[in-house]
Amino acid sequence: MNNIEHAIEERIVKYKTEYKFEVKDRKVTIDELRQSIEHTLLKPIATVEEISKLCDEAIKYGFYGVCVNPSFVKHAVDRLSGSKVKVVSVVGFPLGATTQFIKARETAELVQLGADEIDMVIHVGMLKSKEWTYVYEDIRSVVEAAQSKPVKVIIETCYLSDEEKIAACVLSELAGAQFVKTSTGFGTAGATTQDVHLLKWCSDKLLVKASGGIKGFSQAVELIKAGASRIGTSSSIKILSEGVEG
Amino acid sequence: MNNIEHAIEERIVKYKTEYKFEVKDRKVTIDELRQSIEHTLLKPIATVEEISKLCDEAIKYGFYGVCVNPSFVKHAVDRLSGSKVKVVSVVGFPLGATTQFIKARETAELVQLGADEIDMVIHVGMLKSKEWTYVYEDIRSVVEAAQSKPVKVIIETCYLSDEEKIAACVLSELAGAQFVKTSTGFGTAGATTQDVHLLKWCSDKLLVKASGGIKGFSQAVELIKAGASRIGTSSSIKILSEGVEG
Repeated sequence: MNNIEHAIEERIVKYKTEYKFEVKDRKVTIDELRQSIEHTLLKPIATVEEISKLCDEAIKYGFYGVCVNPSFVKHAVDRLSGSKVKVVSVVGFPLGATTQFIKARETAELVQLGADEIDMVIHVGMLKSKEWTYVYEDIRSVVEAAQSKPVKVIIETCYLSDEEKIAACVLSELAGAQFVKTSTGFGTAGATTQDVHLLKWCSDKLLVKASGGIKGFSQAVELIKAGASRIGTSSSIKILSEGVEG
Repeated sequence: MNNIEHAIEERIVKYKTEYKFEVKDRKVTIDELRQSIEHTLLKPIATVEEISKLCDEAIKYGFYGVCVNPSFVKHAVDRLSGSKVKVVSVVGFPLGATTQFIKARETAELVQLGADEIDMVIHVGMLKSKEWTYVYEDIRSVVEAAQSKPVKVIIETCYLSDEEKIAACVLSELAGAQFVKTSTGFGTAGATTQDVHLLKWCSDKLLVKASGGIKGFSQAVELIKAGASRIGTSSSIKILSEGVEG
């Protein structure tokens, strides 16, 4: 797949010659923030009751969506029925190290259960091994299985060099994903404004979801200013109330 | 499923009236230790090269097996071909929160790829919700998909009360698993001698795999004395060399 390698190299050259970290200041409204939030509960100890509460809160506060593990998608879809709140779920989560077949099969099941968006984890080890074709096919098979549902590729920035982040963006773009997403929340670190800005710069075609360790209003606003279209957080209500009070 | 609830309650009563933490001292030989070790690499950043090294080390040191993520099973099976080293892989790992269908499908694929043993993660949230039937069926579907391959149920002890640990053991036993395993290594804590002893006491039919945070020789030996038949660790070579030198 020489085309893939070429595209990655080209983007890295562009990065080295042109890229500059510079965040433009602008007003972020409470409504913009609210509508960017994916109210998230992915802990293994989450109970059915807590998922119900998550859904009810998402309706009450007008969040964009909820983000839950696959086994709770059916419950969330039922609970949110009749509302505008989207159901987002995860594939190959959080290690990204299951097989391509299972990632695609999991995606197909989630779509069938009613999930609106799919957040898949990239194969970090294969990315670090520069197995571009493998990583491309891994994403591509999920995009195909998702039919027309948006796919976000979680690239787990905490483990990657800038060059690897760029490679991950190029691969996600080529494979037809709609978003890149910074973090699973289970790695060694979460979203930074630097990473969000870099990812947004890297591709005109991809949107960015910031996630992992987002706990405060000003942090969320900075991430949006840096280029995030979505904020994945379990601290949504705290963040929103800080914004309303501030 | 009144039978399941009854079996769990009975075992908890027995625990409250009879259980005592008491580890009998005995000699653990280097060979017993070596042959109990599953040489483990489950980090998301693991590369193909590192998996090859893991396999080569398992042959060199005579470990029982390697434990790798699903996407590396084929590679490990090829690399270990002709040796006695078993290939162990993981299902629904490490959160245990994917669907029952996907856990079973992942198991079937791993068996087809040549995995010898399956370490599945229990649905911790459903266990904590006392959804016994769900948890039983979750394990049962993996046991069935594994055909005759041994299934270990990772119960993630760090999140559980003693009563929940007992419930997890009873459910694993009833569903036909061969082992309970303490930890994924991605939770808030790993194996303790207390937990291994309790799990071993809990069921005559189940063996125990201790895993998570096992980094030293004396720690590994204590876990074996407490009742562990297997040790899952990434520090295998260090542990063995401490034992040989000591």
